[in-house]
Amino acid sequence: MISENIYFDGNVKSLGYETVEGKSTIGIINPGEYEFGTAQKEIMNIVEGELSAMLPNQKEWQIFSAGTSFEVPANSSFKVKKEIQTAYLCQYR
Amino acid sequence: MISENIYFDGNVKSLGYETVEGKSTIGIINPGEYEFGTAQKEIMNIVEGELSAMLPNQKEWQIFSAGTSFEVPANSSFKVKKEIQTAYLCQYR
Repeated sequence: MISENIYFDGNVKSLGYETVEGKSTIGIINPGEYEFGTAQKEIMNIVEGELSAMLPNQKEWQIFSAGTSFEVPANSSFKVKKEIQTAYLCQYR
Repeated sequence: MISENIYFDGNVKSLGYETVEGKSTIGIINPGEYEFGTAQKEIMNIVEGELSAMLPNQKEWQIFSAGTSFEVPANSSFKVKKEIQTAYLCQYR
């Protein structure tokens, strides 16, 4: 089963699947700024493109390029923004 | 714009987007065996999971793990198979 998820009026779309280590999604983020809440820990991997992220309890944006990743703890929120479309892998572990 | 693509009765789903270097898609392949045709050159990158691929003019299956990639020329076809869900990035360049 491959789940389809749409957020922010279609500006973020993802596909969900299962791995032996837990659930994952891959998705695309359109240009813009978005805030996401987390129910469990998320490992966000940038697959293609680049993303600026404001992580929980941080005061500055950090830039993450393709091939890099960042972790967000459960029950928190983070913001991302960018001027280009960016592809990501999100691992719930 | 993020395009949504469904193949093989929903066993392969992908999301399409644009980069400065050309079009890309990210997608999920369910367990099974599938044959894809190419209209242009494709660079297939395994994002998570693992895929066996039978490339054009080859007689043996090759295994590609997460982090590896293979190229398929335009106007050809290739087969993939696997027992687990696999996430990929396909770059049309």
